[in-house]
Amino acid sequence: MAKDKQKKPRRPRAETPKGFRDYFGAEVRARAAMLARITEVYHAWGFDPLETSAVETVEALGKFLPDVDRPNDGVFAWQDEDEQWLALRYDLTAPLARVFAQHRHGLPTPYRRYQVGPVWRNEKPGPGRFRQFTQCDADTVGSASVAADAEMYAMLGEAFEAAGIPRGDYLIRVNDRKVLNGVMEVAGLLDPADPEKDAHRRGIVLRAIDKLDRLGPDGVRALLGEGRRDESGDFTKGAGLGPDQAAVILGFVAARADTGAATCANLRALVGRSETGLAGVQELEAIGEMLAASGTAAIIDPSVVRGLAYYTGPVFEAELTFEVLGDDGRPRQFGSVAGGGRYDDLVKRFTGEAVPATGISVGVDRLLAALGEKGRLTAEEPGPVVVTVMDRDRMAAYQAMAAELRAGGLRAEVFLGGGNMARQLKYADQRRSAVAVIEGGDERARGVVQLKDLALGARLAAEIETHADWKAQPAQLEVPRATLVDSVRAMLARGL
Amino acid sequence: MAKDKQKKPRRPRAETPKGFRDYFGAEVRARAAMLARITEVYHAWGFDPLETSAVETVEALGKFLPDVDRPNDGVFAWQDEDEQWLALRYDLTAPLARVFAQHRHGLPTPYRRYQVGPVWRNEKPGPGRFRQFTQCDADTVGSASVAADAEMYAMLGEAFEAAGIPRGDYLIRVNDRKVLNGVMEVAGLLDPADPEKDAHRRGIVLRAIDKLDRLGPDGVRALLGEGRRDESGDFTKGAGLGPDQAAVILGFVAARADTGAATCANLRALVGRSETGLAGVQELEAIGEMLAASGTAAIIDPSVVRGLAYYTGPVFEAELTFEVLGDDGRPRQFGSVAGGGRYDDLVKRFTGEAVPATGISVGVDRLLAALGEKGRLTAEEPGPVVVTVMDRDRMAAYQAMAAELRAGGLRAEVFLGGGNMARQLKYADQRRSAVAVIEGGDERARGVVQLKDLALGARLAAEIETHADWKAQPAQLEVPRATLVDSVRAMLARGL
Repeated sequence: MAKDKQKKPRRPRAETPKGFRDYFGAEVRARAAMLARITEVYHAWGFDPLETSAVETVEALGKFLPDVDRPNDGVFAWQDEDEQWLALRYDLTAPLARVFAQHRHGLPTPYRRYQVGPVWRNEKPGPGRFRQFTQCDADTVGSASVAADAEMYAMLGEAFEAAGIPRGDYLIRVNDRKVLNGVMEVAGLLDPADPEKDAHRRGIVLRAIDKLDRLGPDGVRALLGEGRRDESGDFTKGAGLGPDQAAVILGFVAARADTGAATCANLRALVGRSETGLAGVQELEAIGEMLAASGTAAIIDPSVVRGLAYYTGPVFEAELTFEVLGDDGRPRQFGSVAGGGRYDDLVKRFTGEAVPATGISVGVDRLLAALGEKGRLTAEEPGPVVVTVMDRDRMAAYQAMAAELRAGGLRAEVFLGGGNMARQLKYADQRRSAVAVIEGGDERARGVVQLKDLALGARLAAEIETHADWKAQPAQLEVPRATLVDSVRAMLARGL
Repeated sequence: MAKDKQKKPRRPRAETPKGFRDYFGAEVRARAAMLARITEVYHAWGFDPLETSAVETVEALGKFLPDVDRPNDGVFAWQDEDEQWLALRYDLTAPLARVFAQHRHGLPTPYRRYQVGPVWRNEKPGPGRFRQFTQCDADTVGSASVAADAEMYAMLGEAFEAAGIPRGDYLIRVNDRKVLNGVMEVAGLLDPADPEKDAHRRGIVLRAIDKLDRLGPDGVRALLGEGRRDESGDFTKGAGLGPDQAAVILGFVAARADTGAATCANLRALVGRSETGLAGVQELEAIGEMLAASGTAAIIDPSVVRGLAYYTGPVFEAELTFEVLGDDGRPRQFGSVAGGGRYDDLVKRFTGEAVPATGISVGVDRLLAALGEKGRLTAEEPGPVVVTVMDRDRMAAYQAMAAELRAGGLRAEVFLGGGNMARQLKYADQRRSAVAVIEGGDERARGVVQLKDLALGARLAAEIETHADWKAQPAQLEVPRATLVDSVRAMLARGL
């Protein structure tokens, strides 16, 4: 009996795993169109495409993800049959470092590449928080010059504009990991001779700075000190800094001034006595001049903190500055849609030789949502012309009609489901088709077909009063079979 | 000491995991162009795009892979933190069945969709045998009519032709799983009242039929009987059929005749007494008529066996019939690049309600390789115009030149690496750039730039004798800075 029960398994559930989703029709096409516009910009700037495998060895990916509350350090990982641990990539940067190290003797230096593809994070799923999402990256590997960083920001601005986000609706905020490290030195949280020491406390400090927008200076001050109890009563332990240390951090966070030069002067005063900090300020000064020369919509902003642990120099976040309604119904800035920075030590992990590199990463789903909010997505295209089936034995003749329509440049299909004419027209409506073609025995005998104007039907249904043009534009038209393609084209044209 | 050792981990290896690979520049672009042409055909035929998540629950994917020599039944799988088993999809069909079951109340029926994306198989990697590859599928869910199958084959032919495989270079071979089951019944290997019985032996028989091309009738006969020892001495155990049973199978395999009608007549004689077999023959007859009406390059071929276990009706393989040189240096047909069939029970696994469905799947990497063999890939585009850097302080001026060139519709970048002019020109050569721009202090003072014709240099280097046009077309040209874009365009034009 038990065996019989085992033989009849319960039905599998028709669900994506938690945190995963599917993308349908119009959204897939809108995303592809947006990505084509962005990558065309990357390509024009001399970047070549690359597609790496989705699966990497865990050791090649390294441990750079922030705030990990998951096993396997935030990645989806499993053991191969030869005991090697494999994982899905969590970004497109770590794989690029692996690719460059692997193929460095065959690749040009600098190696400029772009890549679009899904990445996976083993994070706690939540509303709007997915475990698979698409990134669209460009990177320059093998250039130590901050000109490479400044170029990235200028190119990103052009890519935003190509995608449909006009100048004025985005802002690129630039900081430097070296300045951050200089601040840590000045605050007594980083000893250049023993960089591992205090790494945990520095992590708390960085996460506190990152929350400035949300918590304000007092909230950050609490997190820098003993800790903070939020509205729900949960307590977050702080970094335990003394007042002087916290003052250094808060002074740093508030260092942004009206101009990049003024901000850099503030930073120089704060961290100039740290060698690393000074180098960072000098990088930001050089970048600021280049951004001014290229007219890029970017500012120097010391409050920018990027979560990934591999950054070594300039880092940035690009945010969209227009307002949308938040979940609470209150207007808020749309926020970050891209980020990145310099990671000079990522290739060195593999080869031992320093290879400087810098890059940008666009969060594709976020940017597409922004275009939707701005009404910048191309309108959903109408569905195909549907050739209905009155007589199942005449399938070949119906297929010939659809083939003629396609040869005439129209999207067309034969209805292949079951059901009567009402069911078929309902299907055409559901597909948002503008025209249905009907040919029964009577029409066939007379050498005609009926064209049903479904777009007109939809317009009429949408208007409450009787439309004056109704009789002038009948919703069904009999036309000679021989003029099928031209007649359908004419009916589509009057709907425009 | 031991702790110190632990602190210094060995370097990770810069390698993809075994069986995985990366795709670079020109190949990525050629593939994208090919896929755009194929999916434009799918779209014109009324199919809508879909992108499902790469990760599915193991139970949603089901166990349908053939010949599995791996743990987890051939998929890459791991356990989520809530104990659920997740896996990378092994095809795009099982996820489609899940999607339709999940969203069936919101989707039109029939649901016509196409999807392009990577799939993963946990198979033994080998030369040319990868564990991640790309498929390009189209499916019609919710149509029981064989017109849906015939339509798929016609559309696939059109897609091949759009991709650059002309009619005459491909052949679609159609069989029917019901005919196969009828043959099994006639051979006493399938009892309709107890379909699980003899499933293992039927698997051996199917794999034997699938090897007909390679082993010939005698090899198949051996595998149907006691077994076969191959050239390396390895013994493959056979199905253990008696001579009468083997004769039924071999008669079936040899049933292909000059015309589809004649093949179907042979099949009718062989399996007509099985109810299932007869239904299969009738399906093939109907499909044969439709294919003749649409002029599709397809034949009925009883030797077609598809490995996946979910097929229930018509199945097909599409092969490219032109010859290429095999690994052994001898010419062989290029072979299969697409396959698929009808899977009427795959949605039912989830819902309990029968939902008929059929589809096609193109092996994208194989088809791209075929286009390469036929010389049908667009020639690799030249690299970007490279603006060299003589004076690091003038970076903004060099970036302005590149920006002007891009605004003029040209691909252009500033050299961002280190090194002298020779190194920079070597980089431009490596990028296959046609033109390099040079501006030093002297040029700047005189308001000119030097244009280096790298394409001409490459052509001269390729010809052993001195080229007569050499003096008429100098490899370096001084032009006014103000005419930069037009002058570069003119230099590019003379290289065409």
